[in-house]
Amino acid sequence: MPSQPHPFDPLSPEEIATASVVRMLSSLERPLFRVITLSEPPKKEIIAFLDGFTPPPKRIAKVHAYISKDFHEIFVDIEGRAVITNNILDGRHSHVDTAYMKQVEIACLDDARVKAEIQALSLPVEATVIVEPWTYATDGMNDMSTRITMCWFYMRLSDHPDANYYAYPLDIVAEVSETLEVTKIYRLPSGRDESINNDEKLYDHSKIHSSSEYHPGLSTNQRTTTRPLHVVQPEGPSFKIEGNHIIWEKWTMRVGFNYREGMTLHDVRYDGRSLFYRLSLSEMFVPYGDPRCPYPRKGAFDLGNDGAGLNANNLKLGCDCLGHIKYFDGWHVTSSGDPLKLPNVVCCHEQDDGILWKHTNFRTGNAVVTRSRLLVLQTIITVSNYEYVFIFYFGQDASIHYEVRATGILSTAPIDVGDQVPFGTVVAPGVLAPYHQHLFCLRIDPALDGHKNSLVVEESVPMPFPSVSNQFGVGYVTESNTVTEEQGLDLDHQKNRVFKIINENKTNSTTGTPIGFKLLPYYSQMLLAHPSSYHAKRSEFGAHAVWVTRYSDDELFASGTHTMQSLGEEGIASWIKQRQNDSAKAGVRNEDIVVWHTFGSTHNPRIEDWPVMPCEKMIVGLKPVNFFDRNPSLDVEVSTQAKNKSVLVGEQRPAGMPRL
Amino acid sequence: MPSQPHPFDPLSPEEIATASVVRMLSSLERPLFRVITLSEPPKKEIIAFLDGFTPPPKRIAKVHAYISKDFHEIFVDIEGRAVITNNILDGRHSHVDTAYMKQVEIACLDDARVKAEIQALSLPVEATVIVEPWTYATDGMNDMSTRITMCWFYMRLSDHPDANYYAYPLDIVAEVSETLEVTKIYRLPSGRDESINNDEKLYDHSKIHSSSEYHPGLSTNQRTTTRPLHVVQPEGPSFKIEGNHIIWEKWTMRVGFNYREGMTLHDVRYDGRSLFYRLSLSEMFVPYGDPRCPYPRKGAFDLGNDGAGLNANNLKLGCDCLGHIKYFDGWHVTSSGDPLKLPNVVCCHEQDDGILWKHTNFRTGNAVVTRSRLLVLQTIITVSNYEYVFIFYFGQDASIHYEVRATGILSTAPIDVGDQVPFGTVVAPGVLAPYHQHLFCLRIDPALDGHKNSLVVEESVPMPFPSVSNQFGVGYVTESNTVTEEQGLDLDHQKNRVFKIINENKTNSTTGTPIGFKLLPYYSQMLLAHPSSYHAKRSEFGAHAVWVTRYSDDELFASGTHTMQSLGEEGIASWIKQRQNDSAKAGVRNEDIVVWHTFGSTHNPRIEDWPVMPCEKMIVGLKPVNFFDRNPSLDVEVSTQAKNKSVLVGEQRPAGMPRL
Repeated sequence: MPSQPHPFDPLSPEEIATASVVRMLSSLERPLFRVITLSEPPKKEIIAFLDGFTPPPKRIAKVHAYISKDFHEIFVDIEGRAVITNNILDGRHSHVDTAYMKQVEIACLDDARVKAEIQALSLPVEATVIVEPWTYATDGMNDMSTRITMCWFYMRLSDHPDANYYAYPLDIVAEVSETLEVTKIYRLPSGRDESINNDEKLYDHSKIHSSSEYHPGLSTNQRTTTRPLHVVQPEGPSFKIEGNHIIWEKWTMRVGFNYREGMTLHDVRYDGRSLFYRLSLSEMFVPYGDPRCPYPRKGAFDLGNDGAGLNANNLKLGCDCLGHIKYFDGWHVTSSGDPLKLPNVVCCHEQDDGILWKHTNFRTGNAVVTRSRLLVLQTIITVSNYEYVFIFYFGQDASIHYEVRATGILSTAPIDVGDQVPFGTVVAPGVLAPYHQHLFCLRIDPALDGHKNSLVVEESVPMPFPSVSNQFGVGYVTESNTVTEEQGLDLDHQKNRVFKIINENKTNSTTGTPIGFKLLPYYSQMLLAHPSSYHAKRSEFGAHAVWVTRYSDDELFASGTHTMQSLGEEGIASWIKQRQNDSAKAGVRNEDIVVWHTFGSTHNPRIEDWPVMPCEKMIVGLKPVNFFDRNPSLDVEVSTQAKNKSVLVGEQRPAGMPRL
Repeated sequence: MPSQPHPFDPLSPEEIATASVVRMLSSLERPLFRVITLSEPPKKEIIAFLDGFTPPPKRIAKVHAYISKDFHEIFVDIEGRAVITNNILDGRHSHVDTAYMKQVEIACLDDARVKAEIQALSLPVEATVIVEPWTYATDGMNDMSTRITMCWFYMRLSDHPDANYYAYPLDIVAEVSETLEVTKIYRLPSGRDESINNDEKLYDHSKIHSSSEYHPGLSTNQRTTTRPLHVVQPEGPSFKIEGNHIIWEKWTMRVGFNYREGMTLHDVRYDGRSLFYRLSLSEMFVPYGDPRCPYPRKGAFDLGNDGAGLNANNLKLGCDCLGHIKYFDGWHVTSSGDPLKLPNVVCCHEQDDGILWKHTNFRTGNAVVTRSRLLVLQTIITVSNYEYVFIFYFGQDASIHYEVRATGILSTAPIDVGDQVPFGTVVAPGVLAPYHQHLFCLRIDPALDGHKNSLVVEESVPMPFPSVSNQFGVGYVTESNTVTEEQGLDLDHQKNRVFKIINENKTNSTTGTPIGFKLLPYYSQMLLAHPSSYHAKRSEFGAHAVWVTRYSDDELFASGTHTMQSLGEEGIASWIKQRQNDSAKAGVRNEDIVVWHTFGSTHNPRIEDWPVMPCEKMIVGLKPVNFFDRNPSLDVEVSTQAKNKSVLVGEQRPAGMPRL
């Protein structure tokens, strides 16, 4: 870490240690630390610093801790080693506590009624029962002021610790209280409707099968036909990194990281011009479509409840990335307040991406071709069964792409052999993979040549026909509307609806239009849950694909700051509603705005997603539109064999034959 | 070439030479050959051969040639060296003849009135006037029974032969007849409407600028920061290729190539199971949205008029592709009937594509990760100013992706300095890049475990609420409809509308549903031209995103077989209309069907697309849905550093510093 941290730098381990000064707050009980993270300075302070007018703002830590069972939010002045504010967050819950969840598992398996219920199943003798504790998605059936954990049951049928227990969902479920008591245990519905056969308690041994293992230690037929492919960079990578500052091919940016959002990007510039103040995944929600009680309780906020940072994988050289790789570590805090390293949570490397641009002059036969090099910033998270790969790609043409890959293992539920339901897919005998959605919300805080930006909705529309100015019926024009009030908007590919972020104060001298960037959205179905459902009220961002709000330092999380067992109506739609009719607060034209893009997948599982899912890709883009004065990648060096050293394949020996 | 060609193999040079036996047809005049290509055998004959029941069908050549000014279509039995049929295609035109186009240019520049008009412009002394001849998109203003060529004028202001003349569109246009006479020369509109200032003849010298060159010989500031990146495959590629047959990671397929479609794929199988009989780009249309006469004549069928095969680039090792590359040559015919080699028109190589699948067992901490290797089949075409990159990607997970990249130079028109129009972008002084669309039609001829397939439209819909079976308002189900009649259909991401090709005769034994593949469409605006326009009548496929038809040997080209100056109403919608109400012909349920996907871009140019355009990507996918019994890439070897040999980046020297 640099000695003088940049305002966007995450807290260093030394700073985390300093912030644990809050241990002093209670002489009786040691705080149980949940979070010590950077409290990002107010934007106006950072801008003043970035513009060179002021020294860096104070380093402030935000601390979440339980002290005497109260959930505290404490702000600490690092340099001053002093608590600034200390509040109890009444009725709020901290994000998932893995230590607590482990206790829940143990308590559940120790419970006599649970034992009896398992006994009644008459499982195979080699079975090991696994309890998978899940947070409780609010459904109106219980008081949410204390934690309730849903315990789903599975079994493992092999001694191998990585045997896939999701292949054996059992039809019992338990609810565990804040105080680790099993408050309910009951059978799950296992057929078309909610009816439960309480007479037939026995596990159906015909569900036992052998096709659901993914671990190489458990599968016999590994293909051996894929020959090695190395990315070799004889002169090293093209990027330069100092601390969290990355310089690459005219791009500069700062990488941030926190327990909740994971990787964040700050002060993103191209060729010295400001583009984005902050880019981050704001939230994600995974609601399940199985209507049968208690399945509506399956609905995970993987950022707000679990933390993309906390669950970030320790990326491994040569496994998760090829070529020359720079890794970034993250820092968190132990429950006792000590700095905790999260190693290799972000990787940075380059990729070749095929042709960047090409033209052959047909008159001279001369081809000019350039290859596209990308800067890749990747993080991967594991949230119980699923994994998500989050990647920012920076292009030499000043484009940014954000890719999400969903992989991992489907969440499963039991189903009677031979049965089918219209809200799930049977992926193995007795294994239902229920339909669900993955809804992501990308937060785009633009700063295109300054902080006063606007959102324009542009459509391509046919000119009236017949008309004097469109005699042949082929004419079309673009029609643009600048959004004036905060709102949610929808995509419409049939109108080629384009969302452009522009700076109305800067005109492109050639095109005569404002400089801008456009969003290349990922077309997705929005939330399917009914607007009056808790799912909908809790994930307001899922109602529209594009949202625009006036910037506020407090609004980073589209479903609100505290999602754990939240009751809803504290997300992006609620912020907008609160400010509506107050143009001083809700006006978004030529103001400091934030654009949010909701996208994802309605994931109705295929059997090909089982037992582990090949990545499903979702890609969002940001591209300059009349921002520069021409193709910003025009100066990329022409591609040559001398530089690229490819190899011609001539006559071949068959694949799989002995190696040369 | 193998001694015994496979029925899908393109004609060998020897076969082309044999087919020129048709020279004998006229004792008086030597034929002017335009095409000698494989006439693909009827599907039923090929199936009988593939299934092992019959020897390979006869090799038949289709020959297009002008003989005594008549346009002939001749079928020749190769082995028998005999003409089978010989017909004159009355009222039809062959695809663009570059030799003729060159004659048009010369005739145009030789014309006295043209010379006078150029003289009147008073161009800079260093100017070289360039005539860019374009085919005439039918607009109802002329008789289309003879060829008319539109000649657009540009100038080059540098001695460099690759100076970008599209940067200097002149405001004159000429029309040239079949017999090389300039029939009209007139001024182009250069402002908001069609009005033409015939008084002001002088070229506006304030349009001269220096920012529009793309050739490295003409630009001074090449960036030098991009360090080399090599793809090294120490054991060679994982594919095996014999002739046109490719074997790679459980995939097998045959690569075809012809003058019109360029690359085609045949008999595509995974793990021995039949998936697709034929995959090809059927047609593409590029209509311009500038309504001012004569611009509605800009509307190019780049396959039917120009030929994706004929215009395929000679791909260069290390420039157009990295790693170990196998190239395929194409063969065409000279005007005198000799075989003409089109070298390196298709390249085949492998790419790494990041994570294929990953799961970390949070209980054991054990991560299992595999990397995705792709097989890439790429072809690139140049059609005057534009280039298109067409790529098939095959995945280890049995997915196929088809990617189109649009690059090259925008077609430009003159505009008065300081003016703007709502149907184009000013990209340089006096240079208008008019709005236009690129509409592609991918032809998908499925053979999922056999040739009787169906198309299903599936939507994800919320369950009724409130209702007993959906108490919490979160339930949703899929609703499926099997298409019974030929038709065009539209996309609807808001309903998560999914198009599945299924085989109703084969049930997945685990899911209990028919085996299938789903289309991952590229969401695009359809044709903007009015349905009664010639553009719309000629490009019927542009009206809907997905079409399903009953297979017919004659229906490969969605805008009809002869698009040059066509009058329309002979494309996919017309085929369907002709057969409607005849269920014996129009039924598509459990029949041999073809699915067509129309996609593309409404390309309203950005200045960043100038003077050469960074690739715009459009991607379509095909993925198995309950076709296999589990993830078909489950057996891919786990990713290890031992195999992948990545390099850790530690402390860095700054980029741009002297190399080590």
